[in-house]
Amino acid sequence: MNRIYLDHVAGTPLHPAVMKAMLPYLEEKYGNPQSLHSMGQEALQAIEESREKIAHLINAKPSEIIFTSSGSEANNFALKGLAFAHQTRGKHIVLSSIEHQSVLHSAKILEKFGFTFSHIPVDKYGSVDPADVNKAITDKTILVSIMFANGEVGTMEPVDKIAKICREKDILFFTDAVDAVGNIPVDVKAFNIDALSLAGDQFYGPKGSAALYLKKGIRILPFIDGGIQENGRRAGTENVPAIVGLGKAADLALEKMESRAKKSKTLRNKLIEKLPRAVEHVYLTGHPDERLPHHSSFCVEFVEGEAMLLNLDMQGISASSGSACTSRALKASHVLLAMGFDHALAQGSLVFSLIEETTSEDIDFLLETFPPIIERLRKMSPLYTQYLEEKKK
Amino acid sequence: MNRIYLDHVAGTPLHPAVMKAMLPYLEEKYGNPQSLHSMGQEALQAIEESREKIAHLINAKPSEIIFTSSGSEANNFALKGLAFAHQTRGKHIVLSSIEHQSVLHSAKILEKFGFTFSHIPVDKYGSVDPADVNKAITDKTILVSIMFANGEVGTMEPVDKIAKICREKDILFFTDAVDAVGNIPVDVKAFNIDALSLAGDQFYGPKGSAALYLKKGIRILPFIDGGIQENGRRAGTENVPAIVGLGKAADLALEKMESRAKKSKTLRNKLIEKLPRAVEHVYLTGHPDERLPHHSSFCVEFVEGEAMLLNLDMQGISASSGSACTSRALKASHVLLAMGFDHALAQGSLVFSLIEETTSEDIDFLLETFPPIIERLRKMSPLYTQYLEEKKK
Repeated sequence: MNRIYLDHVAGTPLHPAVMKAMLPYLEEKYGNPQSLHSMGQEALQAIEESREKIAHLINAKPSEIIFTSSGSEANNFALKGLAFAHQTRGKHIVLSSIEHQSVLHSAKILEKFGFTFSHIPVDKYGSVDPADVNKAITDKTILVSIMFANGEVGTMEPVDKIAKICREKDILFFTDAVDAVGNIPVDVKAFNIDALSLAGDQFYGPKGSAALYLKKGIRILPFIDGGIQENGRRAGTENVPAIVGLGKAADLALEKMESRAKKSKTLRNKLIEKLPRAVEHVYLTGHPDERLPHHSSFCVEFVEGEAMLLNLDMQGISASSGSACTSRALKASHVLLAMGFDHALAQGSLVFSLIEETTSEDIDFLLETFPPIIERLRKMSPLYTQYLEEKKK
Repeated sequence: MNRIYLDHVAGTPLHPAVMKAMLPYLEEKYGNPQSLHSMGQEALQAIEESREKIAHLINAKPSEIIFTSSGSEANNFALKGLAFAHQTRGKHIVLSSIEHQSVLHSAKILEKFGFTFSHIPVDKYGSVDPADVNKAITDKTILVSIMFANGEVGTMEPVDKIAKICREKDILFFTDAVDAVGNIPVDVKAFNIDALSLAGDQFYGPKGSAALYLKKGIRILPFIDGGIQENGRRAGTENVPAIVGLGKAADLALEKMESRAKKSKTLRNKLIEKLPRAVEHVYLTGHPDERLPHHSSFCVEFVEGEAMLLNLDMQGISASSGSACTSRALKASHVLLAMGFDHALAQGSLVFSLIEETTSEDIDFLLETFPPIIERLRKMSPLYTQYLEEKKK
């Protein structure tokens, strides 16, 4: 069976050129970058070159890049590290209600250490209103954390406007840009961003490769304490092959971002246009325009996300029903609930996120395959039967 | 130039069979283990198989293994996670003065949160006396942290005796076993170990692969908060290829541990016997018998470690001068200082740690190459000139 992978948000395949760049560092170039001998030097040079490439991708300085093992680690590092380093100024933090679990759960833990949080609501498209952020800021606020784009509904937030407010008020601005970097232009200088997280497996880099950008001069409490790696800010032997892969993926992203986005957007728009017409009671979630180019997401009434995923999978289509970090919990998405969806509808969430290999034929196949699946599932749904009976009256 | 890599402690090469096991997960099997579709299932199954293998290596249950990205992360997780989860019982922790920096620095941070620490001294061989641990324990002690073996001087600690004391007193026992697991037998059940860290790049597994063993039923505060991965105890997309590699490396370690150790020990013993005879004022550091089989370490008087490393490197020999996590800081090793070495001698530290590819010819070459290097360096050493002049008198 020809597999159609439409689960970009859970992780992209490794680009063959990235694999090629990593191979020597998996095989013969196995030195530890902290070793003083030439095999160490070779590894050190490789990770410093990667640092330059990642910095270039987001218009940062190389010294502003701290490699981590995942976007979740970078998010924990940012939230906890900035909170603890700046708590003498205040212990209040502002964040959106649709942040990733690694941000929300870090906040929850910080509450045990006396920090307080204001959760900014979102509108029905999942957009944060900068005016709401402005209102939530108090004289005790030290940090605002609003994601760049949401992986579950694709909505891109007005990060530039929010960052500007923070800069004017001299408050740190952090953005979880894991779903954005490598897929859409992100410029930390132009956008006044103080700290940002990114992950390689969202743009054809390897799993285990990620980074925190931290603007020069901003203090942070290290998260993984110990050795002198990453300028004393993140201990642990550097994952050289992953870091090299991240650098190569950054190079490719710069080169191909526009063409990838253009192609994805065309196919994605076809899906957004046709899927709700092909099946009744299917609604687009997230912003209709301000959304990631590879991202489409829907709520399908009277059907559960899990059942749809498994049936699509049997037809060779890999999709998701929200965040991979929570999918197995099978709870209704906190993102959709925050956007005002009711519990039942939120359970019918479905995300089709395109990769660069996605073809027009893949989308056509999905459009053909989807309606009979939903029809079959709805036949077994008591809610749907009830709906039909009420409609008859 | 034929390169002779004697820097096992900074990281082993990836075994070709490990690379082979990882390849499919780097290339076509790129699913996220948390995705519900079959590509996710495939990845999930792979990491669960790895979990069984790692558990088998240390005689734990699979559910007691939490994957991390490095030994340093596992050490931070253990120290901070256990301290915060058990602080209602007390805030005192006992550790040795030769723990790895990731343990010592985690302790330093915990002091800011009101925890107190007793640092147990070591003897001239770097051995902890279990009686000292016993004496240091108070009614406020919640955790004892003593490493299994020290990577800088090779000494293996009497972990079984220390763990027994802790078990009797109902105190948690954690051991940083990063340098030990995969190289010598480690049995968490037989040794009464409650928590243990290990890293794949110490036994021919990949960089970025590591784990924390945590005995069933012991509470811990998650370190990376967020998603439901690792049973809610460690968020972040699992690094599937690294985890698969770790599992394969565990299999190989079980199969080859004895033969690897036997071969290494023979060659290593030759080095320990002959090096101090080949060059004057060269002293073995660490325990003469109770040491890791692949490990030899020395102090060379009147010469600095860095100069020796660079000169050895020019002859194609990769060695180290203590821990890779601190080597670039070029400070005297805290381990050697704790063992009673003076600063000057501690600066002349040198570690030759063998890998499975090391041959008898490699050791012979080192034994030939080493004396002229030291002779040349000593000629440039004011301390050595002074010594010679004083000797003449």
